Amino acid sequence: MEGKKKNISMAVIKRLPKYQRYLGELLKNDVDRISSKELSERIGFTASQIRQDLNCFGDFGQQGYGYNVKDLYNEINGILGLTGEYKTIIIGAGNIGQAIANYTRFERLGFSLNGIFDTNPKLVGMKIRDVEIDDIDNLGDYLAHNEIDIAIICVPRNSAQRVSNILVEGGVKGIWNFAPVDLIVPKDVTVENVHLSESLMTLSYLLKNKDLEDQE
Amino acid sequence: MEGKKKNISMAVIKRLPKYQRYLGELLKNDVDRISSKELSERIGFTASQIRQDLNCFGDFGQQGYGYNVKDLYNEINGILGLTGEYKTIIIGAGNIGQAIANYTRFERLGFSLNGIFDTNPKLVGMKIRDVEIDDIDNLGDYLAHNEIDIAIICVPRNSAQRVSNILVEGGVKGIWNFAPVDLIVPKDVTVENVHLSESLMTLSYLLKNKDLEDQE
Repeated sequence: MEGKKKNISMAVIKRLPKYQRYLGELLKNDVDRISSKELSERIGFTASQIRQDLNCFGDFGQQGYGYNVKDLYNEINGILGLTGEYKTIIIGAGNIGQAIANYTRFERLGFSLNGIFDTNPKLVGMKIRDVEIDDIDNLGDYLAHNEIDIAIICVPRNSAQRVSNILVEGGVKGIWNFAPVDLIVPKDVTVENVHLSESLMTLSYLLKNKDLEDQE
Repeated sequence: MEGKKKNISMAVIKRLPKYQRYLGELLKNDVDRISSKELSERIGFTASQIRQDLNCFGDFGQQGYGYNVKDLYNEINGILGLTGEYKTIIIGAGNIGQAIANYTRFERLGFSLNGIFDTNPKLVGMKIRDVEIDDIDNLGDYLAHNEIDIAIICVPRNSAQRVSNILVEGGVKGIWNFAPVDLIVPKDVTVENVHLSESLMTLSYLLKNKDLEDQE
């Protein structure tokens, strides 16, 4: 199975969280097993797409039985790296930063909130869900004493690269970036962007060109 | 040019907002023209990719001159449908809803905030940036009297489909969906999802499999 992993495309990887979400819902509803056809009807991918995707990671389906929901859910969690705990910090306690800090769903997925940093003296010292907002000037020192897996950048675009540099220097290997800039980081650091404006512009484009997209 | 548009792939469309962002920055810095090579160095796509992308929409480049930044910026804004105004409302004034409501960048792109709706009596009547939060029970009636282009769904997953149905019935054609569900809507309604958990899971996967992704 390890050997198989190497050829997984980003397209498959991007679909995995959707499998995780749907299987999680099936589990909650006490569904034990499901065929690729039934899963297809729920999730909206074709049955052959589903079989092909899940085959990338090993043999989960059984002819005439379908998939064992719990096994498949656990396996996908494992593949996604959701079996352990990630220590996260948030940089920037503005609107988006506070929203992320308050979003308990992430904690349930294994992402714990360990620190929040901001420059604004009015925010420093305040608490969000038991985590006190610290001055961003202390970030470098904090990272020297705390191993953090993921930093969530929610600062304005002009400060994002500077913050990113401090994080990288402090040994952070994963950055979830909400600032509308493309960060420059060393090769061993992974950045996942959430560019909200770009998403909104895509919606705008699709609305204006609805007639052209209907064939999709 | 109209004829050309029909074959534009989603991959190109998804890159357009990035062009818009970089060209906007160039404009701010008073850059008049730029070659595909220089643009490539900034934006990170290859020069041939850039020429190919922009050719989908017409002939913007001139041999030996490069692109006129302002013309290209305006043209891309036009293609993205960013030349007019979109009337938007937010459903759900929780963490994410409030963050979006407070994000003035969207207004500058032409997305005006016209209403906010929530079920929580503690929130109803409060104001965010001069917009009073209204009771979600009034949403259907509001839509009967106001033409809204885009509704931003920020309610919990269990209420999202119900809210979506009200919006569709009220004539809304564009939905920006932050709830972690896949909405079922008629064909003439466009949904753009921002599934934050999925983005975080992708980051988790990439962190766990960094060694396998290095070739990318």
